Amino acid sequence: MNNERRETIYNQAKEWILQAGTTIREKINDPLVVNTKSNPNDLVTTMDEATESFFVSRIKDTFPDHFIISEEGYGDNLKSLDGTVWIIDPIDGTMNFVHQKRNFAISVGIYHDGIGEIGFIYDVMSDVLYSAKRNEGAYKNDVKLAPLKKEIIPEEAILGMNHFWLCENRLVDEITMQKLVKKVRGTRTYGSAALEFAYVAEGIIDGYLTMSLSPWDVAAGIVIVNEVGGATTNIDGVQVNMLEKNSIFACNSDLQKYMLDFLQKGRK
Amino acid sequence: MNNERRETIYNQAKEWILQAGTTIREKINDPLVVNTKSNPNDLVTTMDEATESFFVSRIKDTFPDHFIISEEGYGDNLKSLDGTVWIIDPIDGTMNFVHQKRNFAISVGIYHDGIGEIGFIYDVMSDVLYSAKRNEGAYKNDVKLAPLKKEIIPEEAILGMNHFWLCENRLVDEITMQKLVKKVRGTRTYGSAALEFAYVAEGIIDGYLTMSLSPWDVAAGIVIVNEVGGATTNIDGVQVNMLEKNSIFACNSDLQKYMLDFLQKGRK
Repeated sequence: MNNERRETIYNQAKEWILQAGTTIREKINDPLVVNTKSNPNDLVTTMDEATESFFVSRIKDTFPDHFIISEEGYGDNLKSLDGTVWIIDPIDGTMNFVHQKRNFAISVGIYHDGIGEIGFIYDVMSDVLYSAKRNEGAYKNDVKLAPLKKEIIPEEAILGMNHFWLCENRLVDEITMQKLVKKVRGTRTYGSAALEFAYVAEGIIDGYLTMSLSPWDVAAGIVIVNEVGGATTNIDGVQVNMLEKNSIFACNSDLQKYMLDFLQKGRK
Repeated sequence: MNNERRETIYNQAKEWILQAGTTIREKINDPLVVNTKSNPNDLVTTMDEATESFFVSRIKDTFPDHFIISEEGYGDNLKSLDGTVWIIDPIDGTMNFVHQKRNFAISVGIYHDGIGEIGFIYDVMSDVLYSAKRNEGAYKNDVKLAPLKKEIIPEEAILGMNHFWLCENRLVDEITMQKLVKKVRGTRTYGSAALEFAYVAEGIIDGYLTMSLSPWDVAAGIVIVNEVGGATTNIDGVQVNMLEKNSIFACNSDLQKYMLDFLQKGRK
């Protein structure tokens, strides 16, 4: 993707994201229809759907040759990442949106021929926009984020992770995960994958670990974390596949080898 | 404590808390001396000590007949809660303070003859002050907090808890805790007990559960959560003792019986 083209797309995406965020803030106290998807805690609201629909119609009108992968089903059913693909979670952290009316984000990653070119994570209620273009650094609003600190050791790291992975589950040995909790300095759970990627990029947590996420949960975050020198792979250390679900370990690069070795012991 | 006296103490405490917060914000990027206390992850900084010292000297000058229980040891060594007692955590969430430079709070509870009269939890970097006076409601800055929602069921509750209690530990059966995680809708970990109490009061989490906290972690939070109709006991359902460590379950009252019954199965 050439720079001029990327700049046009970046500016247009940013405008839409801020506009969608304004709408969400205006309607945050309106009555909400909440439904469930794969399980009783996998929530979707009319606001997720309306926001996704807004993006899809704007993209299709303005960039008719672009493709869309998105959470609520208004996008395309893609078998390849050829061309320019927008990977969108209209509201990442829907449970927070419903229960807290904050701590959720609009997540938009824009990939070209499989390469992450642009990432946006917009913390709507705080009006904080994390953004990055490949090879041009990452920003929190207008402030460039510093490269991640060097010489982080596991014993002084704070990890983002869901409590679920410390309980019996299909994907990872819970005892290994419990040992990891005791190894590191601290653990946090914020309830939005996109925001946890942004926090890794900011250095307020040193890693974010989960066993199963969809492309729209991680597409923007990967671009942003890469731009501060972080590592973003699945737990086998392999690049994330944007056409399927993946495990994720996004982290300060200093932690990657140790943590991946640790997690290998617990693979199922 | 008569109302006029309480008003005087409330206004004075609020002034000092905002003043201490301003100082912390001004110095947030200064180099920090970090030491450890009971274990390598139990952190204390010169800022914790300076902030506590600020409160203790002001209180001793202005209210020489008041007593102080505080985290860093500048207070009194009390055997009773007779009289007026300030229970202070100068920086609750020191790990967040050190690693994140946000998501920590000044916590001040003021008790008279053992009864919580005043509570303040100040989210310093967000400049959000949660406050309450007994029988006069709780506030987030100048906005009165609504009574907690009715008819919360465990399956739709979000609980704040540390991952540590899902791992083998001395105080609670980890399998029971893991079952609890699977029972509720979601779990969060924010790294500051005081803020998690404030979030219960705000209704953004429905309960906050932990197996061991000191009086300064909970004194203010108990006053604030009580004022929105929440329940604040140890996990046996008994009133928290402000002279020793306690387990804590602060919650929407609708959840209390179910959760305490559930936790009884896991008592050690």
